Amino acid sequence: MDIDHTFQETKTYVSRTALLESTLALLEWDERTGLPSQGGAYRAEQITHLSGLIHRRRTAPELGAWLQELSAGPLASNATSPVGATIAKLFKDYKRHAQLPIELVEATSRAVALGQQAWEKARELDSWNDFAPHLKTIFDLRREEAQLLCERPNPDATDLYDALLDQYEEGARTQQLTNTFAALRDELVPLVSNLTIAPNRPTGHCWQYPVPVDRQRRISKWIAEQIGYDFSRGRLDETTHPFCTTLGPNDCRILTRYQEKYFPSGFYGTLHEAGHGIYEQGLPDKWYGLPPGAACSLGIHESQSRLWENFVGRSFAFWRWCFPLLAKQLNGAWKSLSAEHVYRDVNLVAPSLIRVEADEVTYNLHILIRFELEQSLLSGELSVADAPDAWNERYQHYLGIRPSTHRDGILQDVHWSAGLIGYFPTYTLGNLYAAQLVEAAERQLGPLTEQFTKGDFNPMLSWLRENVHAHGRCQSAPDLMLKATGQQLNHRPFVKYLSNKLAPIYE
Amino acid sequence: MDIDHTFQETKTYVSRTALLESTLALLEWDERTGLPSQGGAYRAEQITHLSGLIHRRRTAPELGAWLQELSAGPLASNATSPVGATIAKLFKDYKRHAQLPIELVEATSRAVALGQQAWEKARELDSWNDFAPHLKTIFDLRREEAQLLCERPNPDATDLYDALLDQYEEGARTQQLTNTFAALRDELVPLVSNLTIAPNRPTGHCWQYPVPVDRQRRISKWIAEQIGYDFSRGRLDETTHPFCTTLGPNDCRILTRYQEKYFPSGFYGTLHEAGHGIYEQGLPDKWYGLPPGAACSLGIHESQSRLWENFVGRSFAFWRWCFPLLAKQLNGAWKSLSAEHVYRDVNLVAPSLIRVEADEVTYNLHILIRFELEQSLLSGELSVADAPDAWNERYQHYLGIRPSTHRDGILQDVHWSAGLIGYFPTYTLGNLYAAQLVEAAERQLGPLTEQFTKGDFNPMLSWLRENVHAHGRCQSAPDLMLKATGQQLNHRPFVKYLSNKLAPIYE
Repeated sequence: MDIDHTFQETKTYVSRTALLESTLALLEWDERTGLPSQGGAYRAEQITHLSGLIHRRRTAPELGAWLQELSAGPLASNATSPVGATIAKLFKDYKRHAQLPIELVEATSRAVALGQQAWEKARELDSWNDFAPHLKTIFDLRREEAQLLCERPNPDATDLYDALLDQYEEGARTQQLTNTFAALRDELVPLVSNLTIAPNRPTGHCWQYPVPVDRQRRISKWIAEQIGYDFSRGRLDETTHPFCTTLGPNDCRILTRYQEKYFPSGFYGTLHEAGHGIYEQGLPDKWYGLPPGAACSLGIHESQSRLWENFVGRSFAFWRWCFPLLAKQLNGAWKSLSAEHVYRDVNLVAPSLIRVEADEVTYNLHILIRFELEQSLLSGELSVADAPDAWNERYQHYLGIRPSTHRDGILQDVHWSAGLIGYFPTYTLGNLYAAQLVEAAERQLGPLTEQFTKGDFNPMLSWLRENVHAHGRCQSAPDLMLKATGQQLNHRPFVKYLSNKLAPIYE
Repeated sequence: MDIDHTFQETKTYVSRTALLESTLALLEWDERTGLPSQGGAYRAEQITHLSGLIHRRRTAPELGAWLQELSAGPLASNATSPVGATIAKLFKDYKRHAQLPIELVEATSRAVALGQQAWEKARELDSWNDFAPHLKTIFDLRREEAQLLCERPNPDATDLYDALLDQYEEGARTQQLTNTFAALRDELVPLVSNLTIAPNRPTGHCWQYPVPVDRQRRISKWIAEQIGYDFSRGRLDETTHPFCTTLGPNDCRILTRYQEKYFPSGFYGTLHEAGHGIYEQGLPDKWYGLPPGAACSLGIHESQSRLWENFVGRSFAFWRWCFPLLAKQLNGAWKSLSAEHVYRDVNLVAPSLIRVEADEVTYNLHILIRFELEQSLLSGELSVADAPDAWNERYQHYLGIRPSTHRDGILQDVHWSAGLIGYFPTYTLGNLYAAQLVEAAERQLGPLTEQFTKGDFNPMLSWLRENVHAHGRCQSAPDLMLKATGQQLNHRPFVKYLSNKLAPIYE
């Protein structure tokens, strides 16, 4: 075969694997939305079997041979072109997958399918004991994986965590994150204290009116469309823990949850997931299933969701536009309020127990807790049995509050039950990246405030399409950020954004 | 390997194939319920790829060798025991699949995935031309399949149809159905004429009250539960064309559709699909994916849906129980009515255009039309281009009415777009089998009327579980019917049931 033909064969082969990967994503989407209560065990078998087939394809010797040949050839010379990136990233992925025995891959698939089902029930019953054995299995399996992936013979805790982190945030290192997060924490902790004693705190009174779930559904669909999510290529459903998943080049689905008595839960959940969906919908669809058509990293992914949720959705300009339109849909509940009231209330900063409902400032302390805990659990330094106490103590330490139930504590998030260990830090990276991106966009386009006031989100979206979405996974996150913003990872734009916004609100 | 080990290997192998088959069923379920409008083309590729994988597994030489060995061995001696039937049916299926090249299987999968999407749009737009090319491709591919499956070198029209029919109704023959259907037609046509001029015809006034779709959803869920459909192992959704599909041993889903202005559409659609679901839920789940855990035939399947829909759901006993409960849920719309009114209206016989909403008498004339047309289309005697005219003429001839749109004519049913050719006659078989089964059950248990009056459907259900559901595909439909009822296929119990019920209503 000549080299072009080898490249085509490789592309076709990997695209076929993507047919199975997206089918697997449907099995998981359906598991989280509509699976009958007794259907769980068989679903885990379906997922396990498909994961095994996918792993066999990902580690097929002919794929390895093609990629080896391509890596040494002329098509690989420009590693950030679509063709070059395809070769480089696929070869990197191949080498990683080839280190993992199929028994481990299948065991992990089964454990996380059953783990998520167990988590959902345990959370409902607030029963840690129903979940703990699943969590232990999952941490054991992922530790085994991390050990296999480590290059050094006697990996320490940091090596192990790096091995998993790299799957979510390519090239990131535990040590660098520890430093950045520490610098961020040193800014945020005094900020939280100052805001807590500030004279003019928001009250949160806007949320005292219940909004029927049916109406919230209509509002969520509407706001997702307004910011640019395309329903002809997606859909919005409900689930226990909101997420976004892609089932094909024209099928990216978002999920949220509604609380009749707490409107922002569904509204901001939707804005957040729609931000993820808009990113996926902006990836080059002709490269679907290949690196140029894939997300750059989870940190970049999260920058997109947080950007729409917070930088847009909690801005005064947004509420000047949104308030009258939303008030009309709330049937008079907001008749004595103004855009300013809502703006203040969506920027209420107060330590709280639930990460996904936390304000922008304390949110990152939630992430820090998970980042620290999962490192200890992965290394084995902390046992699963002791994890709830460790959780509660850290909440006391960083946020000054202590959960009274596991549901509001260690059982709140789906991630660990889904095997996602090394994933949480990408949330804080997303916040930092988002601040850097918004700063850069406004540097280039001028202030976007006036457009938001008119409900015009196109200039922001176009800038993101061009500077972030279009590149897929052709560049690493640090390179992408450097090119788009002129800066390395930096926590200062985020801190500056928070201070600039919150100081006038809290006086 | 010893023979027991070979049997275990075979079982494991086929059960793994079932993991993929049920995953394919999820891709199709989702295609018909929630797929974003632009997601169709990629979904067709996912379905095609999975169908190819499944076909490769179904025709794997090692599977053939195991089945050959098992068929010659002692485990095959009792062909209606679970083990013997597993061997016999799997070997039969293997030989059929092995005659079909993978290219044909994949082309058919793609054609029917795209065909169903095209049908759904064409039906909405009432545009025959948007659908005709798809239908031609589908008939061409299935004709090719039938030719490959025919044992005789120059198959005639009947041979071709037999080859497809056998996949839905094992062992049935075109000639036998033609005869039975002719005998039935000769009874039904004069019955329809008599009822049309009868003095005391029902009016259908019960349906003049619109029922909000939300309320219909609740009612449908309730009635499905009442007759025995288990929601912990299933769910009820909405789609264009109602169906039932099984995604695992504890996951059998039913789908219906609602019309605000025509309550019986959703109500009887639900009873019908719940009947299918109850059958699937009654199959031995430890044999899931293998012949003892599979449905006997589509005729038997349809006997279960029609039994609950009509023999139960259009009986006076059922309405004596159901009327007050339903009237309460209809908020006074039925306050001037009685059980008798509703009973009369659900037994209104009148020629109409839409098969799934046809009464029990004229229904079988709809089937006859499709049975005749698909034979001509398959043999090539009738061209796809001429099919709408042929359709309309036959409606004029058998039912005395003529559709004014394709939507109410040839575009009404999903089957042909899904490649289901040779499937329609199983609907009439289902009616005949249902009448025979009810007659036999009442012969053994005594009249079931009193129990229905109390909403107690358990005696009927238990009898079906024992005499029909428990046997899976271990016996052929004729053998199963003979054992359960003491009779061969016979149209008389059905005609007798109709006359006994309708004569008093119409006087």
